Amino acid sequence: MKKTTLALALALAALGAAQAKTVQVTLTAKEVELPIDNKGTMYRAWTYNGQIPGPVVRVTEGDIVEFTLVNDKTSKNSHSTDFHAARVDVVKEFESIKPGESKKFSFPATYPGTFFYHCGSDPMIQHIARGMFGVIIVDPKDPNALPKADREYVLVQSELYPNPDNQAEMMAGKWTNTMFNGGVFKYDPVHDPAATRILQAKPGERVRIHFVNAGVNEFSSFHPIAGIWDRVYVSGNPKNVIHGAQSFTVGPGDGAAFDIISPVEGANALVSHVMKQALTGAIAILQFSNDADPKAGKGDNIVVR
Amino acid sequence: MKKTTLALALALAALGAAQAKTVQVTLTAKEVELPIDNKGTMYRAWTYNGQIPGPVVRVTEGDIVEFTLVNDKTSKNSHSTDFHAARVDVVKEFESIKPGESKKFSFPATYPGTFFYHCGSDPMIQHIARGMFGVIIVDPKDPNALPKADREYVLVQSELYPNPDNQAEMMAGKWTNTMFNGGVFKYDPVHDPAATRILQAKPGERVRIHFVNAGVNEFSSFHPIAGIWDRVYVSGNPKNVIHGAQSFTVGPGDGAAFDIISPVEGANALVSHVMKQALTGAIAILQFSNDADPKAGKGDNIVVR
Amino acid sequence: MKKTTLALALALAALGAAQAKTVQVTLTAKEVELPIDNKGTMYRAWTYNGQIPGPVVRVTEGDIVEFTLVNDKTSKNSHSTDFHAARVDVVKEFESIKPGESKKFSFPATYPGTFFYHCGSDPMIQHIARGMFGVIIVDPKDPNALPKADREYVLVQSELYPNPDNQAEMMAGKWTNTMFNGGVFKYDPVHDPAATRILQAKPGERVRIHFVNAGVNEFSSFHPIAGIWDRVYVSGNPKNVIHGAQSFTVGPGDGAAFDIISPVEGANALVSHVMKQALTGAIAILQFSNDADPKAGKGDNIVVR
Repeated sequence: MKKTTLALALALAALGAAQAKTVQVTLTAKEVELPIDNKGTMYRAWTYNGQIPGPVVRVTEGDIVEFTLVNDKTSKNSHSTDFHAARVDVVKEFESIKPGESKKFSFPATYPGTFFYHCGSDPMIQHIARGMFGVIIVDPKDPNALPKADREYVLVQSELYPNPDNQAEMMAGKWTNTMFNGGVFKYDPVHDPAATRILQAKPGERVRIHFVNAGVNEFSSFHPIAGIWDRVYVSGNPKNVIHGAQSFTVGPGDGAAFDIISPVEGANALVSHVMKQALTGAIAILQFSNDADPKAGKGDNIVVR
Repeated sequence: MKKTTLALALALAALGAAQAKTVQVTLTAKEVELPIDNKGTMYRAWTYNGQIPGPVVRVTEGDIVEFTLVNDKTSKNSHSTDFHAARVDVVKEFESIKPGESKKFSFPATYPGTFFYHCGSDPMIQHIARGMFGVIIVDPKDPNALPKADREYVLVQSELYPNPDNQAEMMAGKWTNTMFNGGVFKYDPVHDPAATRILQAKPGERVRIHFVNAGVNEFSSFHPIAGIWDRVYVSGNPKNVIHGAQSFTVGPGDGAAFDIISPVEGANALVSHVMKQALTGAIAILQFSNDADPKAGKGDNIVVR
Repeated sequence: MKKTTLALALALAALGAAQAKTVQVTLTAKEVELPIDNKGTMYRAWTYNGQIPGPVVRVTEGDIVEFTLVNDKTSKNSHSTDFHAARVDVVKEFESIKPGESKKFSFPATYPGTFFYHCGSDPMIQHIARGMFGVIIVDPKDPNALPKADREYVLVQSELYPNPDNQAEMMAGKWTNTMFNGGVFKYDPVHDPAATRILQAKPGERVRIHFVNAGVNEFSSFHPIAGIWDRVYVSGNPKNVIHGAQSFTVGPGDGAAFDIISPVEGANALVSHVMKQALTGAIAILQFSNDADPKAGKGDNIVVR
């Protein structure tokens, strides 16, 4: 490294700004059987890396994402990846590839935010509804652009179509349940005693929910029962701040960051306040306790698997 | 009162800031027959205090709300209260109580805004749809945080399910009408000659609509026909101002404050611009006239009963 | 012109502010047969000037719009005009007139923005759904209030009801397709090889989409596939800016301005991310190319007919 380059790097570091870097990201399209409720009902899912949602991709504003999609050779369908954080050519970069093939493309993560990613292969409604989606978080390059979050969680809302081969049923909106992170009442032992997972934090901590609505058809009215959103960042962008909101509408294919702080111990219930959604599965308990697991909501634990 | 305390109180008063106070609020859950249209069709409603919407609870940011829910002994069901303005434990504070019982809890009103309150007892979709809801307004402690409203009105949108014992029908969204404040075309003599009530104001006055969407399922696109929202305050919070908007989406379980000023005499029609909603009842005439009743839209008259 | 008036005019001009002017606008209600898809399926449309959407009305904040509605003598129905940019008396100005009649009214365009206009005659759901709508753009009087757009396009989303005489079907939301500017996949040769039209711009150009959701019932989650909204102006008002958003909800009867810039050649696909909407027709290809037609998206070409 030349002296001048080093000096510049040090100067940037002194400014507290993250330096743009190149990030390698590989996702593998896998068609697998996954449980979609707490009693283990199996569902033929199409996924990234065998999970719903797929892995969280996390980069910093300004980074270059060098992305590789591998369509597993065991797949029966072509797949693709549509990153909402990318500005590219829909035809070239988001093209579908066959089982056993791979596809590379790069993009700079120009805008900070909480973005959806999903398969865009035909018929897109089926590829998304079967679970082929995840979240890409682009952290702002200015580390002070957002108040520091003590814990973070990712929640992706989606609808469960019992027979996703029947496209007409999906187009008619005939879903039976809504889910967070691919499970009916996955984080809600109140409505389903079989639920074993919850979100947790301590009173006074700032908890940031990276929320994405995968749809495929329903709008969400995201609300914390017994809590108030301290901040909502529209599309997760630090410039778009809403203060002290009870609920916020997130359409299909949209996302936002929601901050919440509880002054007391006890539980909040994160829901879509659309009753037909909440009561069929879109509820997550956020437990505030002084005994909260110190690892919960940090690092890889921002998705509660 | 000690001298120093008195001095502090006087200093605060001189600053024009409202002092935090403790406010006692009691609501009584009552299951009653109520008319749900202008011709007097009766409906088995579940209510707070026998009214739809329930009484407006109005406090100032920073106040402590000491709340008592009484479930009338004539009730056949358990009931509860979920204040969207409260940050508490959903399990402890929002618990259901049986007929004849009462329940107390307190919370500080930390965030200013136009908040929903409703019964959260199981099945919540039925308790809300039957009319068990109202509005809690938390005025900002800074009296200049919002432009002064000359008149204010409360409107709560909701859907009418003809047979609310049939939860499956509600979950399927099979409503027949939408309503403002629990009545079909309640404030719309244009679409229903039997309507006797309207909202009113004078030209040039700033009219603030505290709007809440009770749902239970439908999103509202709230719009003033022949008018423009001068301001929309998202969730009713003074920090979240939108200027000069034709319409604004309010999801189920959400609320906002909408300011409107008419430069002329004449009528505006406040509607959800979703046609299937507007044309089944979600229309309120706001008449601007130099002869407007000086008491309308003030004090207890912000809900037109 | 007196000297002082002239001096004032020159001073205002020097400030770069547009001077208020009176603008004559005439629209003619016409019931015509129009193609609603790329293969030329004909539909009994009700229109302004025989087009869907009607002509773009474009004025500057502060202008007086002197409007004349002519209901063509060949019409079989009464018609009217509801401008979302007007603050008037819904009864007087928006009244319906019979075939062969005309109606005049004036209003100042007080608020800048992207506004809906439509027929409000009874039954309004049918008059809008049959195509009787358009966009009125009120440019801000300060020419620097918005970043300069290199190209502009108007897109109006609406639902296609196959039998709009059946009001019950419309009230039940039984549409078969969603459309941009009155055509199914009108601007989408990817999904319909018969499509001959697209939107176009050069990389690096700021493209502003004046988007209105005519409904009549569906909310839109407006999203650029493979792109990001650089700015969203809520209701098209320069004061209401959202930065770097992936999607934005626009309810029926609402509108907004969406700015997009592509750093590269290639295609974006503008859609409602509600899958049942996108996959039935609400997709428009925005092609970024260094060879983009220099006239596209300028002047009268902001609506691609």
